[in-house]
Amino acid sequence: MVRAAVIGATGYAGAELVRILLSHPYAELAVITSRKYEGIAFSDVYPAMAGMTDLRCERFSEAAIAEAADVVFTALPHRASMSIVPGFVNRGKKVIDLSADFRFKDASLYEAWYETHQAKDLLRTAVYGLSEVYYNDIKCASLIGNPGCYPTSVLLPLLPLVKVPFVDLHDIIADSKSATSGAGRSVNLATQFCEVNEGLKAYKVAEHRHNPEMDEVLSRFSGSSVHITFTPHLVPMTRGILTTIYVGLKEAVSSEDIASRLDLFYRNKPFVRICGPGKLPNTMHVKGTNYCDIGFKIANHTRRLILVSAIDNLVKGAAGQAVQNMNIMFGFPETAGLDQVPFPI
Amino acid sequence: MVRAAVIGATGYAGAELVRILLSHPYAELAVITSRKYEGIAFSDVYPAMAGMTDLRCERFSEAAIAEAADVVFTALPHRASMSIVPGFVNRGKKVIDLSADFRFKDASLYEAWYETHQAKDLLRTAVYGLSEVYYNDIKCASLIGNPGCYPTSVLLPLLPLVKVPFVDLHDIIADSKSATSGAGRSVNLATQFCEVNEGLKAYKVAEHRHNPEMDEVLSRFSGSSVHITFTPHLVPMTRGILTTIYVGLKEAVSSEDIASRLDLFYRNKPFVRICGPGKLPNTMHVKGTNYCDIGFKIANHTRRLILVSAIDNLVKGAAGQAVQNMNIMFGFPETAGLDQVPFPI
Amino acid sequence: MVRAAVIGATGYAGAELVRILLSHPYAELAVITSRKYEGIAFSDVYPAMAGMTDLRCERFSEAAIAEAADVVFTALPHRASMSIVPGFVNRGKKVIDLSADFRFKDASLYEAWYETHQAKDLLRTAVYGLSEVYYNDIKCASLIGNPGCYPTSVLLPLLPLVKVPFVDLHDIIADSKSATSGAGRSVNLATQFCEVNEGLKAYKVAEHRHNPEMDEVLSRFSGSSVHITFTPHLVPMTRGILTTIYVGLKEAVSSEDIASRLDLFYRNKPFVRICGPGKLPNTMHVKGTNYCDIGFKIANHTRRLILVSAIDNLVKGAAGQAVQNMNIMFGFPETAGLDQVPFPI
Amino acid sequence: MVRAAVIGATGYAGAELVRILLSHPYAELAVITSRKYEGIAFSDVYPAMAGMTDLRCERFSEAAIAEAADVVFTALPHRASMSIVPGFVNRGKKVIDLSADFRFKDASLYEAWYETHQAKDLLRTAVYGLSEVYYNDIKCASLIGNPGCYPTSVLLPLLPLVKVPFVDLHDIIADSKSATSGAGRSVNLATQFCEVNEGLKAYKVAEHRHNPEMDEVLSRFSGSSVHITFTPHLVPMTRGILTTIYVGLKEAVSSEDIASRLDLFYRNKPFVRICGPGKLPNTMHVKGTNYCDIGFKIANHTRRLILVSAIDNLVKGAAGQAVQNMNIMFGFPETAGLDQVPFPI
Repeated sequence: MVRAAVIGATGYAGAELVRILLSHPYAELAVITSRKYEGIAFSDVYPAMAGMTDLRCERFSEAAIAEAADVVFTALPHRASMSIVPGFVNRGKKVIDLSADFRFKDASLYEAWYETHQAKDLLRTAVYGLSEVYYNDIKCASLIGNPGCYPTSVLLPLLPLVKVPFVDLHDIIADSKSATSGAGRSVNLATQFCEVNEGLKAYKVAEHRHNPEMDEVLSRFSGSSVHITFTPHLVPMTRGILTTIYVGLKEAVSSEDIASRLDLFYRNKPFVRICGPGKLPNTMHVKGTNYCDIGFKIANHTRRLILVSAIDNLVKGAAGQAVQNMNIMFGFPETAGLDQVPFPI
Repeated sequence: MVRAAVIGATGYAGAELVRILLSHPYAELAVITSRKYEGIAFSDVYPAMAGMTDLRCERFSEAAIAEAADVVFTALPHRASMSIVPGFVNRGKKVIDLSADFRFKDASLYEAWYETHQAKDLLRTAVYGLSEVYYNDIKCASLIGNPGCYPTSVLLPLLPLVKVPFVDLHDIIADSKSATSGAGRSVNLATQFCEVNEGLKAYKVAEHRHNPEMDEVLSRFSGSSVHITFTPHLVPMTRGILTTIYVGLKEAVSSEDIASRLDLFYRNKPFVRICGPGKLPNTMHVKGTNYCDIGFKIANHTRRLILVSAIDNLVKGAAGQAVQNMNIMFGFPETAGLDQVPFPI
Repeated sequence: MVRAAVIGATGYAGAELVRILLSHPYAELAVITSRKYEGIAFSDVYPAMAGMTDLRCERFSEAAIAEAADVVFTALPHRASMSIVPGFVNRGKKVIDLSADFRFKDASLYEAWYETHQAKDLLRTAVYGLSEVYYNDIKCASLIGNPGCYPTSVLLPLLPLVKVPFVDLHDIIADSKSATSGAGRSVNLATQFCEVNEGLKAYKVAEHRHNPEMDEVLSRFSGSSVHITFTPHLVPMTRGILTTIYVGLKEAVSSEDIASRLDLFYRNKPFVRICGPGKLPNTMHVKGTNYCDIGFKIANHTRRLILVSAIDNLVKGAAGQAVQNMNIMFGFPETAGLDQVPFPI
Repeated sequence: MVRAAVIGATGYAGAELVRILLSHPYAELAVITSRKYEGIAFSDVYPAMAGMTDLRCERFSEAAIAEAADVVFTALPHRASMSIVPGFVNRGKKVIDLSADFRFKDASLYEAWYETHQAKDLLRTAVYGLSEVYYNDIKCASLIGNPGCYPTSVLLPLLPLVKVPFVDLHDIIADSKSATSGAGRSVNLATQFCEVNEGLKAYKVAEHRHNPEMDEVLSRFSGSSVHITFTPHLVPMTRGILTTIYVGLKEAVSSEDIASRLDLFYRNKPFVRICGPGKLPNTMHVKGTNYCDIGFKIANHTRRLILVSAIDNLVKGAAGQAVQNMNIMFGFPETAGLDQVPFPI
């Protein structure tokens, strides 16, 4: 049994980590921290968990956590992560960071969109935790920059196709629709029930911080400089991201060609489901799961490929993928702790 | 491994049975039937289940099912159940029926609220499957009448108190609020999204069929003739029932007294959680689980006890309790297949 | 044209007052204030209002408001109201206060549930603004204590019946379900989208501040000391309260009797709609309107009358009734500004 | 007063027509029809309307309607419309058809996406009822093909820009997100509450019938052959469409340039609101109104213009625009009956 710590356990991603780790067959949740709820039982913060765990939220202490845990999940806001991650790495712990702090290879790109980076040297060894794509690197990594929720929903459908010659890398648009838990548990007016319910809006159009994250990975993976157009939207739901991607095609392509490339890329990957012909994903089908469902349609009249992906933003988009990465790092079955049967509705 | 069949697998309760049985450690889902989707893969009816099962919906055949299964779950509308249940019972199968057909001891009560009963003799041996309360009878039963969702939410908080002298059995009101999946998957105008969303209504006030079901159990259990006032409401949610029960008190009672009676009654019962002092249930805390959370408050100024319970109508209110009953019947751990960690949100 | 001011215009009740007053045929919205949004255009706070008004939120100034307005609506938290209302009353302005500060006749009752009252003398002349019931007093009032949303939904169905001999005044329970806008626009965790959506809970059971408000009015109106049991619930909707009231009957009563008493009481009252036989209210039917819909059912087996009412908590439960009271005070048609046709969905 | 008839008054668009016409200052709703609810009071079909109207749903009769009404709104499924519209046109009535039957100029395009057209000759004189754009034609028209909801949300932001040289007409994508009322009131599984709530999906990707409708108008208006890529999505809301449009730019353009073109195009158009710099639409801001809110952002890094529009699909996307067209046809003020103040939430 590997012993795990969750730093920042009471945010939505942190709580989802707690949920998954509590029933993980090879991990034991040893310690959780929360600045806001220090000393409070986790099940008092999330009463759904009553009877599941006696863990209390502790104050952060590098020494105590390093003593208690083999792997550390940091579910903190960016900046907060980079100040504590190096300590654990130096102590030889495996660290999986859910913030943006270790997702970028290019520190200047991070600094252009976030702020001064205080642990730049770690960017070289940190591995981008898109489990299906960087599997081999993750295996050997000691620090994972766990992908953003939007990038996960954009990159999984897109990466299998960015090296094929008929795809126009300069003509890619991703239109994402996210449930409200993506905004986290911090309290603000824009995510009050009455400000979200029966509303639908775009935000941070073409200026969301996940855009450069996608661009860097797409560029690295394809070997070309890629800049995509990305628009996030907020939808009155609790969980789920649906992303619709428009890809320019340089020539006519058949559905079979696309399907076989996706199938091949994700052969033996347990968490990517390619929808059959004529079918498309729905966030309802992945709710509470670590799946990324991918469907597509070719628009012949405009020579575009339209990819659609669905994930649960808190699972495959955050905590689930983090645990998947832990599984890969520790040699556990990739699906350990993540294989519960989905809800029909 | 016990081999299970689900008759009527594509309704919401049936699909939830499929979900639970697919990951049950001691049961194997051997056959599912659906009249409407005969021949169709279950995962085509519920795409969330893609990759989970290859089962196809079969046409109903008593012989084939009896051959393939040790336990039969019937998730059919009332009347349809009573026509097929006797066949399986006669063949020595364990049957857990989710309809109302085998919930009543008094056939004339059933007939007053439903219709002519065609398998009256089975009512004598059928056991009302309120797992925590009729545990010992369930153990030995071959036919279970699985409780209605509303009765489960009413009876669990109420039964521990109906034999205590300070409770006025003639002054009990249950006000229930149900999510929309309680109406089942059959298509009709009243459950179309736009007719439910942003609406809230009472229906079948004091004339819902679950009222006599509750009354019969309350009367049997208490030894007095009990008739409660019951009002169901429809709420724009997918899962959950919250029931608020108003009980007249014949004398002043302390909170400690009530708490200790509830605690005692449900000691060692894994699926009933009594909320701590000052806390109350929320359907969100039991979503997707087999829990019944119970809280209460004493209104001294009007000498009433107010009990509040929360269940997931599809789990503890239907499929989960059915599997709990199977566990009891077959001597499995009561929580087998039902112990997944709840979602924090 | 009467000139109106709204103090606290950016909360949900205040904004709803702005909405109604902007299209009122006999009132002109002269000034609005907001501490938080001072200097900001109202349509920047509520972009739905773009093009509707150029009003900016002003800092509160008694002198300026008294100069600009004939009638002052105060939509502030309790306590804040009582500190400014006397100034306007002294200057001869008509004041309609939406807080709890002037709803009670008995200052000690207010103080038991709220806090020290600083304008007790005004309680004598303040009129409880339940428009249909205190119509004649409202006509002559200079200060209105506008009723709470829950009390409105409880009192309107109940008051026509509290003087009839067959009603047991000591056996009344009100179970209310409120949409989330009732919690106001102040930002807090409990009303964040993900904490409300797909959840349902009771809160402040038998200890909500609206309970003594109802009790005082019921007692005053009936001439007996009445204490009812009241439980509020929070529902994942934006607008609406549905209240289910359980009334003990001392003898058998016919539906016709109840119906005729309700019809008689509300004859010529434009905003109370009594549902026809067999019909019940739905909050969807009153959304955005000043209606209170009332239906009922008699439970013969338990000798109880079950009344159900539906209102829009922000309209009949707050701003709409406030404007209705203004109409009555100024001799306008009672429906002026409140007669828009409801939405079908 | 013009006398109006609504054919098909009990669907969502029909009912919205009834709502608007009931408070129209220059129109009188003379007759409504419904095949399904023949003989039933409209307020029994939509109880929200109790007290608003005594109209009953009548059986369709061309003669009776022509006798009673000056203007006929047909809110029927396509095909049904074309069989009755010619009769009214021949009798000299003004007809506003909300189906697709008279939206196309090119009958073969209609027939490729719908079915054989049985009133082709009327296509020549029918006017596409996009009120702001075809105002002058509408003025003189006797038959209006009222635009589809999606096309309205796509065309209003796009048309002001399709003639400017820097816009690449071959690089336009529209990603629309629609509330569920867009599917109409007909009962089916896909729009049951539990199948929509907490779900999000794309459907009819690049093959929705509104795509050729948009293409024809864009081509006609721009003078070039335009084919856009269009993807509709279904969102768990009752009302609203948010459309995000991606337009390729041939050269760098300033925000001021775009803003001034939009402002100029919609100068004096009361129902189009151009959001100020840095602001974007939200369906919540247009709920229940006839507004189309338009915002935009230029993505310099990918040389794309991103336009975002919000409408209420039942108002500006159907019934509201239909009444706006009636106003234009009869010389009423364009906003008559459509000028109610929006709800803040």
